[in-house]
Amino acid sequence: MFLRPSSLLLHPLRTTSNDMRYVERMRLLEYWGIKDTALTSEFRRSQFLVMIDRKPLVRRKGSSIQLPSHSYPELQKSLGEYGFLFDTSNTCLLDAIDGPNNEVKDDVLRELGRCLDAQFVDIRTAMLGISSERERNILAKFQSLSKWSRTYLRCPKCGAPLKMRVSKTGATCHTCPQVYYPTCSPVAITLVSDPTDSHALLVRHKGSPPAMYTALAGFAQPGESLDECCRREVAEEVGLPVSKVMSLNRTQPWPMPNSSLMCAYYAVADMSLKIDACPTELESARWFSREEVAAALLRTLSDPLLKGIPRDVNERQKLLYIPPHGAIAHQMIKAWVEQQPPA
Amino acid sequence: MFLRPSSLLLHPLRTTSNDMRYVERMRLLEYWGIKDTALTSEFRRSQFLVMIDRKPLVRRKGSSIQLPSHSYPELQKSLGEYGFLFDTSNTCLLDAIDGPNNEVKDDVLRELGRCLDAQFVDIRTAMLGISSERERNILAKFQSLSKWSRTYLRCPKCGAPLKMRVSKTGATCHTCPQVYYPTCSPVAITLVSDPTDSHALLVRHKGSPPAMYTALAGFAQPGESLDECCRREVAEEVGLPVSKVMSLNRTQPWPMPNSSLMCAYYAVADMSLKIDACPTELESARWFSREEVAAALLRTLSDPLLKGIPRDVNERQKLLYIPPHGAIAHQMIKAWVEQQPPA
Repeated sequence: MFLRPSSLLLHPLRTTSNDMRYVERMRLLEYWGIKDTALTSEFRRSQFLVMIDRKPLVRRKGSSIQLPSHSYPELQKSLGEYGFLFDTSNTCLLDAIDGPNNEVKDDVLRELGRCLDAQFVDIRTAMLGISSERERNILAKFQSLSKWSRTYLRCPKCGAPLKMRVSKTGATCHTCPQVYYPTCSPVAITLVSDPTDSHALLVRHKGSPPAMYTALAGFAQPGESLDECCRREVAEEVGLPVSKVMSLNRTQPWPMPNSSLMCAYYAVADMSLKIDACPTELESARWFSREEVAAALLRTLSDPLLKGIPRDVNERQKLLYIPPHGAIAHQMIKAWVEQQPPA
Repeated sequence: MFLRPSSLLLHPLRTTSNDMRYVERMRLLEYWGIKDTALTSEFRRSQFLVMIDRKPLVRRKGSSIQLPSHSYPELQKSLGEYGFLFDTSNTCLLDAIDGPNNEVKDDVLRELGRCLDAQFVDIRTAMLGISSERERNILAKFQSLSKWSRTYLRCPKCGAPLKMRVSKTGATCHTCPQVYYPTCSPVAITLVSDPTDSHALLVRHKGSPPAMYTALAGFAQPGESLDECCRREVAEEVGLPVSKVMSLNRTQPWPMPNSSLMCAYYAVADMSLKIDACPTELESARWFSREEVAAALLRTLSDPLLKGIPRDVNERQKLLYIPPHGAIAHQMIKAWVEQQPPA
């Protein structure tokens, strides 16, 4: 479960513009992030998203996925009936929102019940299917903070138990003393093209769905820029040097495997060089023409839940799909197919 | 101290182009990063940079700073004479280089002795003064890995002691079991301009040198994109909403306070709104004209060691300096003064 306080404090704003409300919201989040007592006192007035065992509670609308929110009394009742504990120890602070009005409350009441129109899905499915960027990022924050707060229990310097903040945005070692924060790790995700920009080098990772190809990606290491990370990853994963590296001006938080920040890059490699795919990470790495990639994009757009994934072993190595639209790789590949300039 | 293996393995390359040497180098680094036995066997054939108590050994050439490297026998002798321990436990893997030739050796021998032409300086001074981007990033890696390996000793999940790799690029908990990696934290550093792009909003942080103004910066949190990070930081630190956010396509690793990855951004704010500077972080936040910023840039370029920093209290709040050229803020402000488009 996670906590999304109703913002009684947001109402008496001195200014009325949306811009200044944004500033108030950010400062309120900062305050609640640190002040456990203030956040705890908001708890019963808050709205909540729910995730159990890495499965967020979602609602489907057509082929799109949304995150429904619920009030404290509603959740306490329905979660309690199923034997789930629900208090500040297993919640984290996600956002400051306006206080609930009756419409929201009616809507929530109608939707809650026994979760009739909502359902729990795998977090990857949710991330890939959620249509709103804001909801996707909130879910990324949810999974990142809740995983961090469940696994970051001891001071890595001295081994003493940490005191976790109610907001899950920090944990203190009183022995050292030291405050630890949840980190996110930058990842360069790179669309490699040939010098004429007519072909893209896409890869199939081990364990990814059959017939799905995507862009190369890897974590930035301490001491390297994202340009250098991009060059190194292409070298390590497909054995190719790249001659040009450029930011695509697009970043996206991603909660798998932990907390990543995907940063979109573009690079150019020579198609005449032999691809030497790293066997521990990749099952396949190949050049595809813009037409081949466009066909996979169209198939993915018309089948976002990937129902047409091939079961036939012979089909599995074909380029039939790219990642669904919630993935930054989808946006990068789509922009490349449509020959859009960087955002 | 850190380890920079001489690359006997780099010589028998199948290919001769610089590009393919790059690929071999990256793969060798990856291999040595994981294989403790292979890295240990390279130890005595390696070249080393030296850092003691966060003070890297550097050599000054005019107003610029370089990082001298030394061989194992030389260092063992001179460090031993001063009572310093020197083995694989306090070294980390930084780069794979070609094996030493005699010229390098003569040069190293000449420079070593009792460190006649070299000197230890504060790491911040070194980072700000080193002229080569590659050396700067190597030093960032050095400080990040060595700090991480000195402080990440226990499993944060169970508290058991970790087994640190010789390369310092990972540590294993055999109880959980789990491998931990040194992380770097993305930071959005933002040059805020007015809608006509004729004024920049610069800030003086608490504890920064007198009369030095710079760009706003803050760590990205889990679940936010760099655009969102940029907007939030400007709201939190100076109380202003921004209407436009754009990547400047420039990133730089930075080892203070831990391991950061600075990502340059540009944003636009309304000059008529009141600045509300966060008192815990900032001493001052003000709009400056392009001419005022240009004058500070020129003064900084002609006095990179900041010898003219004012001692007079009345002068301290003036814009006289920007950060020296090793800082990404310097490059961002310089590009803005010169009205260069993003890289």
